[in-house]
Amino acid sequence: MRTLNVELGDRAYPIHIGDGLLRQSLLQPCIRGRQVCIVTNETVAPLYLDAVESCLHGFEVERVVLPDGEQFKTLDTVNRIFDRLLETRQNRTTTLIALGGGVIGDMTGFAAACYQRGVDFIQVPTTLLSQVDSSVGGKTGVNHPLGKNMIGAFYQPRCVLADTGVLKTLPPRELSAGIAEVIKYGLIYDSDFFDWLEAHIDSLVAGDDEALSRAIYRSCEIKAEVVAQDEKESGIRALLNLGHTFGHAIEAHQGYGRWLHGEAVAAGTLLAADLSRRLGWLTDEQMARIEAIHRAAKLPVLPPPEMTVEDFRSLMAVDKKVLDGRIRLVLLRGIGSALVTSDFPAELLDETLETRLGLARAG
Amino acid sequence: MRTLNVELGDRAYPIHIGDGLLRQSLLQPCIRGRQVCIVTNETVAPLYLDAVESCLHGFEVERVVLPDGEQFKTLDTVNRIFDRLLETRQNRTTTLIALGGGVIGDMTGFAAACYQRGVDFIQVPTTLLSQVDSSVGGKTGVNHPLGKNMIGAFYQPRCVLADTGVLKTLPPRELSAGIAEVIKYGLIYDSDFFDWLEAHIDSLVAGDDEALSRAIYRSCEIKAEVVAQDEKESGIRALLNLGHTFGHAIEAHQGYGRWLHGEAVAAGTLLAADLSRRLGWLTDEQMARIEAIHRAAKLPVLPPPEMTVEDFRSLMAVDKKVLDGRIRLVLLRGIGSALVTSDFPAELLDETLETRLGLARAG
Repeated sequence: MRTLNVELGDRAYPIHIGDGLLRQSLLQPCIRGRQVCIVTNETVAPLYLDAVESCLHGFEVERVVLPDGEQFKTLDTVNRIFDRLLETRQNRTTTLIALGGGVIGDMTGFAAACYQRGVDFIQVPTTLLSQVDSSVGGKTGVNHPLGKNMIGAFYQPRCVLADTGVLKTLPPRELSAGIAEVIKYGLIYDSDFFDWLEAHIDSLVAGDDEALSRAIYRSCEIKAEVVAQDEKESGIRALLNLGHTFGHAIEAHQGYGRWLHGEAVAAGTLLAADLSRRLGWLTDEQMARIEAIHRAAKLPVLPPPEMTVEDFRSLMAVDKKVLDGRIRLVLLRGIGSALVTSDFPAELLDETLETRLGLARAG
Repeated sequence: MRTLNVELGDRAYPIHIGDGLLRQSLLQPCIRGRQVCIVTNETVAPLYLDAVESCLHGFEVERVVLPDGEQFKTLDTVNRIFDRLLETRQNRTTTLIALGGGVIGDMTGFAAACYQRGVDFIQVPTTLLSQVDSSVGGKTGVNHPLGKNMIGAFYQPRCVLADTGVLKTLPPRELSAGIAEVIKYGLIYDSDFFDWLEAHIDSLVAGDDEALSRAIYRSCEIKAEVVAQDEKESGIRALLNLGHTFGHAIEAHQGYGRWLHGEAVAAGTLLAADLSRRLGWLTDEQMARIEAIHRAAKLPVLPPPEMTVEDFRSLMAVDKKVLDGRIRLVLLRGIGSALVTSDFPAELLDETLETRLGLARAG
């Protein structure tokens, strides 16, 4: 087992990473009261709810099983958590445990932030994406019909248990989608890590525990370093959005859920890399390596062929990262270094989109 | 105009207190972006919405007018604020202005805490109760069908404007209810302030600006001192709940809204004082002064005659302040000093309840 301590002063917490952690007694030291409420969904509950409960001897354990899917990440669903907490008379010393992927983590964290103005919570992320993304940063919240993640709070867990064993039940597409975010950390921050990922990409795709554990550790470590410098997202934290502005346009165009988030980010990262190359910031060889590692991870490297340059332009214009009408993008300066900029010729962005959409259509 | 700075490190903010402040340009220095959204209710909007808007030249001003009343302090109503914020494309630099009493302040503060994970907000409290209570402490939130204030956040405003002029349109009963909380600050913390209140109680009840302004300033100052020592309410902040455990029982028994919160607190404070007297902590003369000032403020000093000792016992048992089955009460040790304790004979509490319920029935 590896343990990473996320240093946030009096809100510091550990992330435990390794195979079979769910079945160990790692939760108990993080629980301050006697009441516990596990929040999970209909997919995860039959797989892991009993295992987690069996580690909680001596506590009063309640459970909330929510429907599975991004479409349920709403204030109404969070209210179902509040109903349950109040019906079962959970007090201020209760601890919520989020057992599931990013949707469960975001909603449970938000419920914990708001219930009686804040109770403890623990993350037990069951997807690779949530293990490397939601484990660090304290972002919680829900969607609103008019915008994703528009309602929420910054709220830190008491601890995170990232059990690599649970990734064995994850569909291969979801594992790959998580790897897309892992690759992102190498690209924006750490060329050595990127080199290591290139060497171990087949082990990661095959679900090798040791490789996954190391990748999760370094991803969380990088995210923690970035977030520590910028907890409320005004500056360098924006680098974590490499590929996301393009990716959000793809997700919005396709309808949420058809492309997995990580798949859209992968195709978006390649668009960002292509534009970086046109700006002279990335060599052809670096571009080829970035494309190769995504292909090896079984991720899409081209946008949906049915999209147009105009689709991207209009969908990217409504992204949160737009300031004063200028699209700001995370671009690469070599492998392991990124910057946020709106200082690029619009024609080059169009060339990037036209070229890669053309490749997608050529199939 | 008086200005009190609430010192909370990087979340410090000013409370401006005085007559006619609504019509002055005090809001603008506290607004960091160009977008502003005023949240108010149907009672306050016709009285003051235009005045506040006319101070906001050069800003893009939106408004949300909610129904008036504690029964609307719900997650659904807060969602109406979110709807409006998203429909009008408010971004992360928007400022919400809460124009109304405690219900509007609590909901607007909570909406600001959650919208895009936190935007600025300003309190413009229009009742005496909200001027001396919600101005300090950062408590925001809504009720749930199974409990009051069960969902919320600790979130600080950028500034507070307490215009004593608006209290002239306040119904006399509501002014008196606010004075109950002002008296509380003297009782728990400052015997000199209590002396001053005794000398000026008629001016306060008559709505005298200078007297109100001074009373609000000192009340907020005391609350700020208490909260600074205990922001998340684990220790001495509990003293602010003098009379509240009894008061909540009265409100719950009568149905919320029939007794104003301050009225229930007044009757509850006299119960706490009576028990303190029986414990030998308060002289008969001090008890008489406490009763006299409440009478002069036109507040009830006895509980509802139709309640029984058993009603109090069962309603107080579900209060949030109960730990391990023992009722904890804020009691007085003389005027200007209070303590939280569960260390008193249950028979004395019964005697207090029986005596004052008897007086109430005798009418």
